[in-house]
Amino acid sequence: MMNEIPKSLSPSARVLMGPGPSPTAPSVYEALSKPTLGHLDPEFLVVMDEIRDMQRVVMGTQNELTMPMSGTGSAGMETCLVNLIQPGDKVLVGVNGVFGTRMAEVARRAGALVTEAKSEWGRAVDPLALREAAGGGEYKLLCVVHAETSTGVLQDVAPMRTLADELGAMLLLDCVTSVGGLRVSLDEWGVDAAYSGTQKCLGCPPGLSPISFSARAQEALSARTEAVQSWYLDLSMIANYWGSERSYHHTAPINMLYGLHEALRLVLEEGIDAREQRHRLHSRALVAGLEAMGIAPRVPVGERLPPLTAVSVPDGVEDAAVRSHLLEHHNLEIGGGLGPMKGNTWRIGLMGAGACRENVELCLRALHDAMTAQGSAPAREGVDAAGAVYAG
Amino acid sequence: MMNEIPKSLSPSARVLMGPGPSPTAPSVYEALSKPTLGHLDPEFLVVMDEIRDMQRVVMGTQNELTMPMSGTGSAGMETCLVNLIQPGDKVLVGVNGVFGTRMAEVARRAGALVTEAKSEWGRAVDPLALREAAGGGEYKLLCVVHAETSTGVLQDVAPMRTLADELGAMLLLDCVTSVGGLRVSLDEWGVDAAYSGTQKCLGCPPGLSPISFSARAQEALSARTEAVQSWYLDLSMIANYWGSERSYHHTAPINMLYGLHEALRLVLEEGIDAREQRHRLHSRALVAGLEAMGIAPRVPVGERLPPLTAVSVPDGVEDAAVRSHLLEHHNLEIGGGLGPMKGNTWRIGLMGAGACRENVELCLRALHDAMTAQGSAPAREGVDAAGAVYAG
Repeated sequence: MMNEIPKSLSPSARVLMGPGPSPTAPSVYEALSKPTLGHLDPEFLVVMDEIRDMQRVVMGTQNELTMPMSGTGSAGMETCLVNLIQPGDKVLVGVNGVFGTRMAEVARRAGALVTEAKSEWGRAVDPLALREAAGGGEYKLLCVVHAETSTGVLQDVAPMRTLADELGAMLLLDCVTSVGGLRVSLDEWGVDAAYSGTQKCLGCPPGLSPISFSARAQEALSARTEAVQSWYLDLSMIANYWGSERSYHHTAPINMLYGLHEALRLVLEEGIDAREQRHRLHSRALVAGLEAMGIAPRVPVGERLPPLTAVSVPDGVEDAAVRSHLLEHHNLEIGGGLGPMKGNTWRIGLMGAGACRENVELCLRALHDAMTAQGSAPAREGVDAAGAVYAG
Repeated sequence: MMNEIPKSLSPSARVLMGPGPSPTAPSVYEALSKPTLGHLDPEFLVVMDEIRDMQRVVMGTQNELTMPMSGTGSAGMETCLVNLIQPGDKVLVGVNGVFGTRMAEVARRAGALVTEAKSEWGRAVDPLALREAAGGGEYKLLCVVHAETSTGVLQDVAPMRTLADELGAMLLLDCVTSVGGLRVSLDEWGVDAAYSGTQKCLGCPPGLSPISFSARAQEALSARTEAVQSWYLDLSMIANYWGSERSYHHTAPINMLYGLHEALRLVLEEGIDAREQRHRLHSRALVAGLEAMGIAPRVPVGERLPPLTAVSVPDGVEDAAVRSHLLEHHNLEIGGGLGPMKGNTWRIGLMGAGACRENVELCLRALHDAMTAQGSAPAREGVDAAGAVYAG
């Protein structure tokens, strides 16, 4: 089974330009390895309070119930759904990629009666199509993906709030690939529940999921007549650990929380608007470079998610071979497509510390090299076109 | 809400002698901050394979379905229960502390018909009492805590397997505070499902839960007629990521897995038997020292859990004041009691890197100092009595 004890790890220092994990900032690495405190140590309780305060700013909310869950983004998704849904509740989900699909599935497992409004992958969800799918009924919950990591689509939230009001529904938003890279304003937008992940624009390794519940969502939680089906994700208990009671629920992932603390600090030091500008600038430069190489974006210009650019693999180019070449020869990771986009789409992330000119240029040069090695050399390298964006 | 951006963290280097988290070894800290790889990077797939192989050795199993879950020990508990239970299944739980109580609660939330066989806290579960509670029926699952972290009790597993066979049941074992500190032999013991945590005897920060399912448990999973209620913890999908398919399910917590990889390496380098001997030796010395100070163990000698010693707070001594004194004046954390043991019990952990003579002596001296400061000075310091154990 095992012949000898494996050696200590020495992972390659990849340039992470896939759909996440994104590059971890040096000070976040440092934070991860600071001395472990007990989960009820008075010093650690201060760390928790600071994380909550910073998370509120980064998510644009004053919601009391705001904290990171002890699992990845999918755990945050499940947390929002199982705490708000009781068996038989009606839930409407906008589905235009993997994560809308997943929300519908998780909601069904929580006993909801789910209506899926399916839109084309690579496009935003059309509020009219959602309204039509709703069929005029009342709903407990409307679920929409703000930033579809599987397709690189950014959803306009305002029409979703309008629709939710028509349906009498709370609004749940997947913000996994927007928080930390774009200004997210849960309170202003009227979002009732939202979840994110640490390994995207926050620039912290995967493992935690920042979530937030509005007062209305918190009331719905209090009004439940049945226990939340997941004990591990039951916010009515977890809130007593993050709140003033400090009741033990599970042992918090201390060192990961150190990492998130530092990652949130970096966002606030840079400023949320400056950070959004940076993500938008480098995304524009990347797209200009790719287009110059004949690599076309999959998403119409008004619906693109700056931190994650989805492009079509050019005809005659083999997806997997190019990605292997990038990894082996340039230490560069980009993502492939999922579902109907598998084999025909690349997903290129510029998130957190990774949203920088150096990465844009590396990616363009490396793609040129990889396609050349495949015998499909693009006419141009793309770096000049990107440079023109930087030159303004 | 927040006046200024918090500073980067500088947590105190505590001596962690509570019920977990335990001290993190220096090389585990280093591992946590190694370069983040993508969750499908070929290099990372090797890391996963090595973790599985090492986890099998440390848990004493050749089970195919063996891997760490992306959550803390309680997520591992919920994983085992929700994957094995379908609504209406009969489950028998031995309850002699917080974690048996929790298993019963999680099983009920999964729709099980739960029978709780309650035993005294601080004692092992009596197989006769369990058999009586079972009332002669057939059961899907018998759940028992191997190492009760809330009371410091170690459970003998063999009679539980015998009973499970009588009931036609699978056997589920909580090994949170035994794996990495004691020899755990799932295959030899006939355990069908088990979970642990990283922050106890494995000496890695909290955040992951190593689990294992026997072939029989895996068959029960395959034979399910309803989807697992938790999507995040659904082993039928997660097995496809840890198995040869490498299908994306959720983004693995990369850097935490580096930490677990190193922690498992340290266990194997030391050797499981040597590690158990070390945990047993220092526990004996600690108990001898405490008894010399008039601080009595809560658990009869044959049922004690070496990595975690529960003792009675002596009459006239105030629990919270002593623990605050230890933290403030000696940088030392020990644990208080839970449930009926709150306020009257201390839980002192000697786990992983923390199971050493230096910590035993620090704890005895610091407790003497804290009780003296409270006006309840013990007659002796306890270090000599501990030294006698070390002298053989």
